[in-house]
Amino acid sequence: MGIVQRLEHVGLTVTDVERTVSWYATMFGSRRVQEMHWPDTGVRGVYITLGDDGSQLELFQKPGTHKHLEADLGMARYEHFCIQVEDIHSTFADLEEKGAEIAFRPRLAKRHGYVAMVVDPDGIRIELLQILSAERHAELVREQASR
Amino acid sequence: MGIVQRLEHVGLTVTDVERTVSWYATMFGSRRVQEMHWPDTGVRGVYITLGDDGSQLELFQKPGTHKHLEADLGMARYEHFCIQVEDIHSTFADLEEKGAEIAFRPRLAKRHGYVAMVVDPDGIRIELLQILSAERHAELVREQASR
Repeated sequence: MGIVQRLEHVGLTVTDVERTVSWYATMFGSRRVQEMHWPDTGVRGVYITLGDDGSQLELFQKPGTHKHLEADLGMARYEHFCIQVEDIHSTFADLEEKGAEIAFRPRLAKRHGYVAMVVDPDGIRIELLQILSAERHAELVREQASR
Repeated sequence: MGIVQRLEHVGLTVTDVERTVSWYATMFGSRRVQEMHWPDTGVRGVYITLGDDGSQLELFQKPGTHKHLEADLGMARYEHFCIQVEDIHSTFADLEEKGAEIAFRPRLAKRHGYVAMVVDPDGIRIELLQILSAERHAELVREQASR
């Protein structure tokens, strides 16, 4: 098919866009790319980078959005988004030192890689993924099982 | 910083994972990559491709998730995810012909590109984005304004 290229961004509605921009800047080095404002609706949008390959987050602040995300478990939903990192252990240690809320610490995934999960100031869940070769992953799973 | 590489996947919890896998296969040519099952919780996960650069969707089916997504506008939330496409007009025409629910049709974005939005069977919003050069975008905006 070839018409779909890739995930380009995730759009989030947040309670305090400046707080969120600062948080992603501190935690992930995100930089402000563009800002928008729709005066008729009072909506503000800030686009920030997520890594260096062009992935972005679109952050919206909309009148009336005032509370933290709490998933309705009965409802279909966005569960998390995932960013690929080079070295999950060093990234995670850095996030922890900077005070990120932690959902779970680095562990071997069922997919070939390590995963961890942190939570942003609005309760948005961010998975970290370090991809490993199938061989390296199998080796680590065996090591873990033999401990 | 350089430790964050890119958006790698988005995780969704859906009401009927086989229906969702079929829908993304039909609409976007997504292919099944891996399946997982956690017998202790009854959770099933299916990973599917989103384009050819390694982006994926993680689809979870969890006991008790029975209803369509309806955003709580007072709550911080995931708003949509966005996939980059080569030619939004042909992709959109194809999706429309295949019966995709449409949120809005292709239009010039404030960012340099065209955007459109479709909705999956659970109410998950999927933005389509065709990136244009800043010059081409400015030209199209001028053309549109002079019509």
